[in-house]
Amino acid sequence: MKWGIALLEKIKIGIVGYGNLGRGVKLVINQNTDMELAAIFTRRTVDGIGIKDENIKVINTSMVHEYVNDIDVMILCGGSATDLPVQGPYIGSLYNTVDSYDNHGNIPEYLKAMDKASRTNGKTSAICIGWDPGLFSMNRVLFEAILPYGKTYTFWGPGVSQGHSDAIRRIIGVKNAVQYTIPIEEAVKRIINCETPKLTTRDRHIRQCYVVVEEEADKDKIAKEIKSMPNYFADYDTEVIFVTEEELKKNHSKMFHGGFVIGSGCTGKNNIHNHIAEFSLKLENNSEFTANILVAYARAIYRLNKEGQVGAKTILDIPLKYLSIKSLEDLCKGSL
Amino acid sequence: MKWGIALLEKIKIGIVGYGNLGRGVKLVINQNTDMELAAIFTRRTVDGIGIKDENIKVINTSMVHEYVNDIDVMILCGGSATDLPVQGPYIGSLYNTVDSYDNHGNIPEYLKAMDKASRTNGKTSAICIGWDPGLFSMNRVLFEAILPYGKTYTFWGPGVSQGHSDAIRRIIGVKNAVQYTIPIEEAVKRIINCETPKLTTRDRHIRQCYVVVEEEADKDKIAKEIKSMPNYFADYDTEVIFVTEEELKKNHSKMFHGGFVIGSGCTGKNNIHNHIAEFSLKLENNSEFTANILVAYARAIYRLNKEGQVGAKTILDIPLKYLSIKSLEDLCKGSL
Repeated sequence: MKWGIALLEKIKIGIVGYGNLGRGVKLVINQNTDMELAAIFTRRTVDGIGIKDENIKVINTSMVHEYVNDIDVMILCGGSATDLPVQGPYIGSLYNTVDSYDNHGNIPEYLKAMDKASRTNGKTSAICIGWDPGLFSMNRVLFEAILPYGKTYTFWGPGVSQGHSDAIRRIIGVKNAVQYTIPIEEAVKRIINCETPKLTTRDRHIRQCYVVVEEEADKDKIAKEIKSMPNYFADYDTEVIFVTEEELKKNHSKMFHGGFVIGSGCTGKNNIHNHIAEFSLKLENNSEFTANILVAYARAIYRLNKEGQVGAKTILDIPLKYLSIKSLEDLCKGSL
Repeated sequence: MKWGIALLEKIKIGIVGYGNLGRGVKLVINQNTDMELAAIFTRRTVDGIGIKDENIKVINTSMVHEYVNDIDVMILCGGSATDLPVQGPYIGSLYNTVDSYDNHGNIPEYLKAMDKASRTNGKTSAICIGWDPGLFSMNRVLFEAILPYGKTYTFWGPGVSQGHSDAIRRIIGVKNAVQYTIPIEEAVKRIINCETPKLTTRDRHIRQCYVVVEEEADKDKIAKEIKSMPNYFADYDTEVIFVTEEELKKNHSKMFHGGFVIGSGCTGKNNIHNHIAEFSLKLENNSEFTANILVAYARAIYRLNKEGQVGAKTILDIPLKYLSIKSLEDLCKGSL
């Protein structure tokens, strides 16, 4: 028997839901030498998800309860609207889980439901893991704690919003569309200059829509319809730019996204010293980056559960040392 | 008896060492409504530190063992070279403590010593708290965990380095000096462009020295002496600019500093998608900002100790929820 890394048991990861995020998780598990993909669970037919590698187990979600001895952590890749509120507590009662629940208004209720579920069988779960909620939440809480005389701002973009692009595509006469969320530079400048202004979401972002229409469509009418759409666009300064299908494919097919959190605060006698802290992301592929975060937190949840720390955790509950493949001792030597 | 915040007991903070950092801590305690300054401990005479407010207790450090019932957390504001290696374990055996130990090479030993000391009387300590080590360490570990196919870079500045300025002042013929550490833009650009280059500290920073000399001093000789100074300047591209005392006072008297950590990594088939994560600080007063971090971690240590989590902790061990004056429930509603 040989000593070394080969001896360590790998963390066995299950994926529930095989959309963009699930595919991202499958890809990034390979970047982590202490992990392996145990199985993918899907509601579609096993052939329907197009995985040709025979070594990968693809299983119908209805059989999810059968694999409790084979999987260490389940990464839940369903949506927050209808999938996670049901899947989360059920799978959470059987497995350690990580999810990217992002319905901000319902987080306290979801946390309660997941905590109860996880404790049924001594499991551990991490909820709302991603970049917002997630890494951005960490920095909002950090900046507010270390700059009590200050203000913290969140900006999204520049990037493609899938939900807003979909909303435009549902308008009659629209063939295809891509929506960009773009931070307003003037607002960022005011914050960096320590003005600590009051800014609504509208004051911080514009929405830019690249739209392909049917041949005989009324462009003016469609532009008006987009700009006045409640919740999505009515509360923003919205630009509509009509392009051809070819232009859209050529120039607007990338799924990039990003954003930043800025904390601005002051210290000193008469508060004369200003400080700016900023956390920013520039992502060429939103789902794959989010998948990377989920996988790192799967490692954390595996370890927390081994230590007997059961129940549901948010990103604010989990010390950073649990994310790293390295030991705390090595981190203290090299990264601290 | 009235209900409300007035009823809550404040966290009683002691300050050990009253230099720039200690003065910063005294100032920022007032920004935190759940804290109060209990006492300042100094090796100087009580009159010598110039505090006129009679309500503030100033005590000689030799009496530090007398106040164990009056202080919840001691913030150790001494230096890492000679103060903390001695003060840390001694005071840590009597009190909960927070310090900004920053001697990177000796962190594992210091952690061990502080852990042993803290456990003697069931106390909790946080070591290496500040921005580097500290917030930058958090982001290095985070970026390395979420971007395993990538590289993480630390840049310091633009800002004033106290240690390097002092080193120049010790040269014969030099009256005064201020040294700026400046990140090299070209290096930053290569990282942002996802080249993931190999870069030494020299490849990432230049050192700019504003120097005032005695009237008859040999400027060429002094410039050479600065540029060839081992450890401080020899390994860097160093600029020396001679100025008058007035110019130095007028243009170079601010104690600003800052820096940034950049993580660059890729995902996707054939690693085609690049991602950039960045954490940056722009600080008008280095000591006061560091003081704010120490105070937030004093809150965390107070709470961890109440929960029975004793021993020494690094910034990688402490969940972010403990830093905030708000409850986890409120954070989940507002900041997550």
